[in-house]
Amino acid sequence: MKKYRYAIIGTGAIGGFYGAKLQQAGCDVHFLLHRHSEWEWIQNQGLRIESPLGDFRLPVVNAYNNVKQMPACDVIIVALKTTQNPRLSELLSPILNSNSVILLLQNGIGFEAQIAEQFREKQILGGLCFVCSHKVGAGHIRHLDYGTIKLGAYQANHEAAGITEAMKQIATDFNNTGIPIELSEDLWQSRWQKLVWNIPYNGLSVILNARTDEMMVNPETRLLVRRIMEEVLQGAQACGRIISNNFIENMLDHTDKMKPYLTSMKLDYDAQRPLEIEAMFGNPLRFSQQAGMNLPRIEMLYQQLKFLDQKNRIFKD
Amino acid sequence: MKKYRYAIIGTGAIGGFYGAKLQQAGCDVHFLLHRHSEWEWIQNQGLRIESPLGDFRLPVVNAYNNVKQMPACDVIIVALKTTQNPRLSELLSPILNSNSVILLLQNGIGFEAQIAEQFREKQILGGLCFVCSHKVGAGHIRHLDYGTIKLGAYQANHEAAGITEAMKQIATDFNNTGIPIELSEDLWQSRWQKLVWNIPYNGLSVILNARTDEMMVNPETRLLVRRIMEEVLQGAQACGRIISNNFIENMLDHTDKMKPYLTSMKLDYDAQRPLEIEAMFGNPLRFSQQAGMNLPRIEMLYQQLKFLDQKNRIFKD
Repeated sequence: MKKYRYAIIGTGAIGGFYGAKLQQAGCDVHFLLHRHSEWEWIQNQGLRIESPLGDFRLPVVNAYNNVKQMPACDVIIVALKTTQNPRLSELLSPILNSNSVILLLQNGIGFEAQIAEQFREKQILGGLCFVCSHKVGAGHIRHLDYGTIKLGAYQANHEAAGITEAMKQIATDFNNTGIPIELSEDLWQSRWQKLVWNIPYNGLSVILNARTDEMMVNPETRLLVRRIMEEVLQGAQACGRIISNNFIENMLDHTDKMKPYLTSMKLDYDAQRPLEIEAMFGNPLRFSQQAGMNLPRIEMLYQQLKFLDQKNRIFKD
Repeated sequence: MKKYRYAIIGTGAIGGFYGAKLQQAGCDVHFLLHRHSEWEWIQNQGLRIESPLGDFRLPVVNAYNNVKQMPACDVIIVALKTTQNPRLSELLSPILNSNSVILLLQNGIGFEAQIAEQFREKQILGGLCFVCSHKVGAGHIRHLDYGTIKLGAYQANHEAAGITEAMKQIATDFNNTGIPIELSEDLWQSRWQKLVWNIPYNGLSVILNARTDEMMVNPETRLLVRRIMEEVLQGAQACGRIISNNFIENMLDHTDKMKPYLTSMKLDYDAQRPLEIEAMFGNPLRFSQQAGMNLPRIEMLYQQLKFLDQKNRIFKD
């Protein structure tokens, strides 16, 4: 069976890890890097992955600093932070062929619809990464835990799109890497489900300077996490998707059992990188408000985070 | 006309300032200090006030380290932080005579009713201090700006009590000091009004590590302040008091014109002192909930502050 050719737009903790696994499993993978120094390093040294699934090196990778030098690819994996998405129109055009599929491995909701507006003929997929990994340095990625990708297809108005042929082919390629992949018939449902965890923990971790275990052990913040999760369910329902209250219990249980954890948004904040506030908070709020549902706690998280993010970046350097 | 004899329970930024002004104007004032070292200092050195109304010293003051050595007084001014209120029953009993009036110069709401439960025969007054002052050191208080006290009487179930004789006499004594005093016929209304400012600015200043001007200039937090003020109005209304929306506009205008300001709760937080969360957030929430009104943003402020306060004090010393 023919394997897909992959482009990795954004070779960081997510794109670098999954791209390297695909290449290790025999796929033809092409990596874009925006920093010139990193691109030079990877041209010379390749990629290095540390992982509980096995450490490995790829001494030779196809690395690019300019998207115009990349070949057209079957699957364009977008693994940039969503704060970079305004650049996507320009970045993706040169590497699309008539059958290319665009896969957003990104947080939050709402971006598949934006990309679908820009590339009307293309199939747009979304992938939710349940993974703990970070970039140690140029071309060096440390995968710590988990790894599952949940994959779904976008359809106009966020209708459930079922399982497409491209999803099956991508799943086959990922299965060869040893990374668990789940196919979702309803991307919108899956993305809202992921927000149930992401919204309270990412938001509060930044605002309260707190690890997950600290929020869980304090009775007031534990209750607040639950109240915020309930608002996510209200938002999902306003947007046509039912998530059961049991799902909240499962998320709380799961978090109780996790090792003390700093969320990705907190790591971004501490490194003074821009926060993915619109993807994770602004878009869910806007979709909910358009459906007539106010979510006061999530709105307050949004407002607090916008303040902190702005101040955090003013003082950078 | 006979002047009242005053006891000052808690000789800090508030009690020390107002007590010294009363003594300067010829009243018989008795100061309680809980720190032994401060009591000794003031026994020897007296009180020193810096103020735009005029600096002055009181070389000799009646200072006590033990309430049992104090004389009975006509007016017992409680100027402790509300976090100390569990001690009041024990502190006040020795200095009450049959006509004593208890005046709480404290933040937040709900404590007059608690004191009224403990001292059923006594008239309980509440005073709202619109003042900017702080303690520089033992017996040394710096008054920076404002100073008005708004005075009202507590009546069962927070009914409006009108203007009492004791309020008039206290107003006369304060008028002699040059401090503006306003009499409120409805203490409950006045206390809720003060919360319109105190709840958003005190809460957010701690959570966001921010001055008032920073919150006002950022459009997201400016909107959040307004939304929180609207919830205070909803709480007041549930508790039987109408505050007009104009009041919110006035508070926002007033804050725009203030010098950049760190709230008293933020100063307490930075000094790792306990925060007056129950007085300013917990009690308003409970009164509102008992009246069937949920205030999600204020509840979230409460939960966030409880978390931060606990963590702040764990790491003290």
